[in-house]
Amino acid sequence: MKYIDGGVCAPVGFKANGMYAGFRKNKNKKDLSLIVSEKKGTAASCYTSNLVKGAPIYVTKDNLVDGYAQAIICNSGNANTCNADGVDIASKTCELLAKELNISSKDIIVASTGVIGQPLSIEPFKNNISTLVSGLDSTLEKARDAFYGIMTTDTTEKQIALEFMLDGKVCHIGGMCKGSGMIHPQMATMLCFITTDVAITSSMLDKALHEAVDDTFNMVSVDGDTSTNDMVSIIANGMALNKEINSQDDNYKVFYNHLYEVMKELAKKIAKDGEGATKLLNCIVKNAKTKNDAKLVAKAVICSSLFKAAMFGADANWGRVLCAIGYSKANVDINKIDVSFSSIKGSIDVCSKGSSIDFSEEKAKEILLMDEIDINIDLHDGLFDAVAYGCDLTYDYVKINGDYRS
Amino acid sequence: MKYIDGGVCAPVGFKANGMYAGFRKNKNKKDLSLIVSEKKGTAASCYTSNLVKGAPIYVTKDNLVDGYAQAIICNSGNANTCNADGVDIASKTCELLAKELNISSKDIIVASTGVIGQPLSIEPFKNNISTLVSGLDSTLEKARDAFYGIMTTDTTEKQIALEFMLDGKVCHIGGMCKGSGMIHPQMATMLCFITTDVAITSSMLDKALHEAVDDTFNMVSVDGDTSTNDMVSIIANGMALNKEINSQDDNYKVFYNHLYEVMKELAKKIAKDGEGATKLLNCIVKNAKTKNDAKLVAKAVICSSLFKAAMFGADANWGRVLCAIGYSKANVDINKIDVSFSSIKGSIDVCSKGSSIDFSEEKAKEILLMDEIDINIDLHDGLFDAVAYGCDLTYDYVKINGDYRS
Repeated sequence: MKYIDGGVCAPVGFKANGMYAGFRKNKNKKDLSLIVSEKKGTAASCYTSNLVKGAPIYVTKDNLVDGYAQAIICNSGNANTCNADGVDIASKTCELLAKELNISSKDIIVASTGVIGQPLSIEPFKNNISTLVSGLDSTLEKARDAFYGIMTTDTTEKQIALEFMLDGKVCHIGGMCKGSGMIHPQMATMLCFITTDVAITSSMLDKALHEAVDDTFNMVSVDGDTSTNDMVSIIANGMALNKEINSQDDNYKVFYNHLYEVMKELAKKIAKDGEGATKLLNCIVKNAKTKNDAKLVAKAVICSSLFKAAMFGADANWGRVLCAIGYSKANVDINKIDVSFSSIKGSIDVCSKGSSIDFSEEKAKEILLMDEIDINIDLHDGLFDAVAYGCDLTYDYVKINGDYRS
Repeated sequence: MKYIDGGVCAPVGFKANGMYAGFRKNKNKKDLSLIVSEKKGTAASCYTSNLVKGAPIYVTKDNLVDGYAQAIICNSGNANTCNADGVDIASKTCELLAKELNISSKDIIVASTGVIGQPLSIEPFKNNISTLVSGLDSTLEKARDAFYGIMTTDTTEKQIALEFMLDGKVCHIGGMCKGSGMIHPQMATMLCFITTDVAITSSMLDKALHEAVDDTFNMVSVDGDTSTNDMVSIIANGMALNKEINSQDDNYKVFYNHLYEVMKELAKKIAKDGEGATKLLNCIVKNAKTKNDAKLVAKAVICSSLFKAAMFGADANWGRVLCAIGYSKANVDINKIDVSFSSIKGSIDVCSKGSSIDFSEEKAKEILLMDEIDINIDLHDGLFDAVAYGCDLTYDYVKINGDYRS
């Protein structure tokens, strides 16, 4: 995989911008972002499974019915969720932007993130969209500004871009996402916007996006709370000039593998930057009876508050891993399970065939003090594997969420 | 309801004791408890749904096949779970006790609680059972000793007893439980032992226990982790001399109502003493389409880490209540939901018909700063209600669980 700079601006024909528009009190924090493609492209989205949905989700869904889009606009500081006039505000936002860009308002993906249940005014959009559009550019700096405009409690930048070849043409995929708390399948993305210059039909793009989501964002949990505003969207403008992908051929596979890589790395960035987190936890499950069993086990471990707190304390409390497997509802034979912990400091076996074994607590501590930990679970029960991504549970998670609104 | 002193020793014919037996390093903490009935009684138990089960669960299940028991023995400090010789140790414990009490080892309920995956030696039982038995008495102090012997991270005493009349006879139910972390349906009890002098058949006792568990312990969550060693057991020795209850008649209803009250109060004590908790949260859901929908909503709110952290911060972040309802999988109409918060300081409406309404943040803060909060959710969608019990998520939860084993 060839990583390059540029984030969502890396693919040909994409520009971005981010600015402070007044959704937040803090003027030093950007809160409005825009990504625009020079040409209209095919587009696809996945949305939160929460019954309570942000108003922009309804508008975006409606706009993407035809499978095309050209621009993505997103504010932070207010989720535009549980507001009686929310859909109206999101629609008006699209109209304002469409006029400014001279495109159809139906070609716009609109998103919001922030506090739920506070009325969202159209004024900050009205007053700033023209400035936002005039500042569009395709530099790395502008991609970064766009990221800063959508971030909420994130503490790290979450951008990535890859370069690869299709039909002898240079292609790119760029992505950015925000998400730190209220992260849980399905979806666990919060917001993720992906751009590509690959030519691909709407239906194949939709297929690729949904498949990749299942093994990436849907395998992340920070706190077990599925957000109301989750969305991952992609626009493919075809400007790489490859032959349009319209079936599951080899080119589709190359495209899919790169899209998966972009989304997996972004998913890991979200897990690692989980609210208050000090560690990224990768739960690697092997040899399950079915893919679903592997996923159930991996997710249960990653979601266990008790295990997450133990990891914060670098405590090799593997009993909590077994406990989580036990309530995961996966079809497993407890008496076959091996567990080990590993990090850059090495690896240590802590449980064999579902029972305790002697191990050096000292060595375990040394391994668990690192900031990226693998929890390796071998079920010895089949052929299917899965990986889930999470983080530890810390004092700071409580601090951040104890008074988020003020 | 007439509350009386005496806990598990309040019913006629029950004695208890608790002592330090060496399962823990700390000699100031009792770690072995015993409850014995003068006469063999009918008995029933509910067990954890976790696939990983403590070894004592298997032994107790086997012993209760005939529906009778006379004694309950429980150690703390070691869960006897994930140990290759666990069942053997639990069986030997029963044999040692049976010999000392001169009863059948099949009439013993055995339980363990503490760290998972550490070998449990039979020695502390061998060395102390005779002292434990000789110290048995029916005083409140002895009931308390028995509670202290089963507690782990609990910080408050969890005992209760009620007196009531059946057939003109004075009857009693007494109960004690332990549980603070790793608390989540099904079961959410950790350990609960109930005694009664009511005469009731095994099958009716079993029915009453299971029904009451569903609306009490199974509606409690501290941290979403279902323990491996959960068990609630009851022995009914018939020494109140009422006519044996053998059908769902009026006497059964009286008995059930008192059993429910005992279990509900114990469940609330567990929630209030959740690890690190500063507040008891009662989520009261009204007017759901079905009982199950009401329960799903109540449990989702109580389990939301984000909402729990907001309660710790006394932050009226009702959006997180709506968010949790949205992913609860309950069949609800979001646009009909009203939410209010209340405590001894009063009540405040925060959401009407699924949307934001104006409310005084100052008044909300005053209400939420109290140590028992009701979250009132009216779904306006049917006739069914449910209540779930939980607690806030605090720095101390993380602290307690960051290094539990040391």
